[in-house]
Amino acid sequence: MTTHVSTSVCIIGSGPSGLLLSQLLANAGVDTIVLDRRDRAYIEGRIRAGVLEQGTVTALEEAGVAERCHREGLVHDGFDLSFDGERHRIDLKGLTGKTVTVYGQTEVTKDLFDRRFAEDQRFYFNVDNVTPTDLKSDSPKVRFTHEGEEIEISCDYVAGCDGYHGVSRQAIPADTLRTFERVYPFGWLGIMVEKPPVSHELIYAHHERGFALASQRSKTRSRYYIQCDLDDDVSDWSDERFWEELALRLGPDTAADLQTGPSFEKSIAPLRSFVAEPMRYGNMFLAGDAAHIVPPTGAKGLNLAVADVRLLSRALIEHYTKGNDAYIDSYSETVLTRVWKVERFSWQLSTLMHQFPENSPFEKRMQRAEFDFTASSEAASRAIAENYVGLPLE
Amino acid sequence: MTTHVSTSVCIIGSGPSGLLLSQLLANAGVDTIVLDRRDRAYIEGRIRAGVLEQGTVTALEEAGVAERCHREGLVHDGFDLSFDGERHRIDLKGLTGKTVTVYGQTEVTKDLFDRRFAEDQRFYFNVDNVTPTDLKSDSPKVRFTHEGEEIEISCDYVAGCDGYHGVSRQAIPADTLRTFERVYPFGWLGIMVEKPPVSHELIYAHHERGFALASQRSKTRSRYYIQCDLDDDVSDWSDERFWEELALRLGPDTAADLQTGPSFEKSIAPLRSFVAEPMRYGNMFLAGDAAHIVPPTGAKGLNLAVADVRLLSRALIEHYTKGNDAYIDSYSETVLTRVWKVERFSWQLSTLMHQFPENSPFEKRMQRAEFDFTASSEAASRAIAENYVGLPLE
Repeated sequence: MTTHVSTSVCIIGSGPSGLLLSQLLANAGVDTIVLDRRDRAYIEGRIRAGVLEQGTVTALEEAGVAERCHREGLVHDGFDLSFDGERHRIDLKGLTGKTVTVYGQTEVTKDLFDRRFAEDQRFYFNVDNVTPTDLKSDSPKVRFTHEGEEIEISCDYVAGCDGYHGVSRQAIPADTLRTFERVYPFGWLGIMVEKPPVSHELIYAHHERGFALASQRSKTRSRYYIQCDLDDDVSDWSDERFWEELALRLGPDTAADLQTGPSFEKSIAPLRSFVAEPMRYGNMFLAGDAAHIVPPTGAKGLNLAVADVRLLSRALIEHYTKGNDAYIDSYSETVLTRVWKVERFSWQLSTLMHQFPENSPFEKRMQRAEFDFTASSEAASRAIAENYVGLPLE
Repeated sequence: MTTHVSTSVCIIGSGPSGLLLSQLLANAGVDTIVLDRRDRAYIEGRIRAGVLEQGTVTALEEAGVAERCHREGLVHDGFDLSFDGERHRIDLKGLTGKTVTVYGQTEVTKDLFDRRFAEDQRFYFNVDNVTPTDLKSDSPKVRFTHEGEEIEISCDYVAGCDGYHGVSRQAIPADTLRTFERVYPFGWLGIMVEKPPVSHELIYAHHERGFALASQRSKTRSRYYIQCDLDDDVSDWSDERFWEELALRLGPDTAADLQTGPSFEKSIAPLRSFVAEPMRYGNMFLAGDAAHIVPPTGAKGLNLAVADVRLLSRALIEHYTKGNDAYIDSYSETVLTRVWKVERFSWQLSTLMHQFPENSPFEKRMQRAEFDFTASSEAASRAIAENYVGLPLE
């Protein structure tokens, strides 16, 4: 027994990409169904990035869910690069006229869920065996199991917003998909702590012992990371050891202001660059992590996903409201041009700021020289700032 | 039987660095002796770089040898980067207010020789067994054989301007010298031809078959290069094969304007990044290729050497005319800060524009994305332009 349901756009994945897409389409009167392997509480509990580009905030405004972000988010006019203790501020506002906003991905997700629930969005949570089919036809299907029931959604389009491990990309025949990957030889050990941040802005620190990042979620909640070995285990890192190592890498001047405390989250994440091409297969579109992953340096992951969704929602809205398929046809190419630039920035900033075990002494000096040149050149600083505040949508 | 001679500064090496240093010191009344393993004709015959930074032209003006360069040199306001056939002009003048001058290193050398000979500079050519000694003492010596005669020069300072293979750097005890190196997995096959250049400005081309450079020495003499295998031999490359490959790499639009002809010079050069630290040992200073090598991409080799010599001449002139040793004491550190930035630029432009056999598909896309970002960002273009016209002296 299979229950048949239909909608215009079936969105696989209820993270920020899927939710934002659903909201933008709903605002334009386009019907969607959103399904996810997990439930709302689990999705909201995932701790991810926390720095929003101005364009991401604009997208939240367009979606009508920016109110709390404007109220609680912290607008940052710049950030610091620190290299062996020497600091250089990237004056985002001065260099580009734009700013970024510190507001956790988890908060963005909550705001979107609140709004989608208030508008009675159709969700299926805790689904299993999700299978997109007939993607090359005019009537794609998404089949799955939900509370013991077999469900088949018929739709015009499928949006694969289900992340790197999701089924959407895997539903594309391997011979039509090209993938590109760089796995970095280290991880990020991150902690969250209920203490004011060490600095009012973010500090990305290169140190001979490895990278460190002083980030934050609010004026009372800090997020710190240090580069660690890929085979490190969280249990290797007591809070005490973490703080000691972080202080070393931030340098004595910065560390003097460090307020330590018990961590309430501690995890290790690998770093990966990944791109799948194209981002369309028949009537299925990929958006966000389903198509590409960036290393977290520079906080591009969520922002890149939001940019995808802005372009995808425009394409679908043009189709439904004006019968114009031009943006649908150009979606993959348009999005990928920007994706590769953002991949480049995340890769470059990662390459600049980390310690790579395989780097020769010459390559280490190249890192230092890049920092020195950046610190001495407004143009080089601006090139970084342009990427950090977010490249143009197209 | 040893002949004893004395001078203030003994300059080892009569290439452009040594000659310019001799000229700048002579202008300030400081006596020098210049020696070289080769003779004037050989040195003038060496074909090298041909693009002078504005600061290099200024140095020639300060030395009083810029007249012919101003008359015959071609001022270029920009150059092109070409990537898989797509061209992006770096508008040097618009982006930095500065220009570069196409004027062969061999011409710079001639002008300097003419002037030094006119001023009766003391030279020893075709010397052998050059041995700098007592470098840590107040009276360093340089011993060598000249026309069967043993000669010992006593001096206050030794200037090692004798290139990468010279004796000066090798006279420094290994445990006080730190060296950094990157050898590139390809070479440059270059030809010179008596034909007008394919474009009025230089074109640096990235192509899937490898890098190509359309350069020039004058309005009627062109210099072209293509990336080749390290084990290629000049005899593998007939003129015909060269022109065919060059045309492919420049792309059909550009190649349509290519005027081919018999080459009158053809050679293969390896590409290397190299830095030795420090650039002072006792009372010996290194300058130019004796201390550092850059790959030719971006034409920094001669310009970097000239910058060294400007700073070294200032240091020595301050010593002799004002008794001020501050610049002598800071020479190595000051010069190296700039050297590393220039090494970075030459390495970056080489890394961007060549095909590296070891590059993964992801890394190839990073090259493409860097070109795309540069083409779309004035700041990124300006960062390149600032390096190309020459970074500030300090």
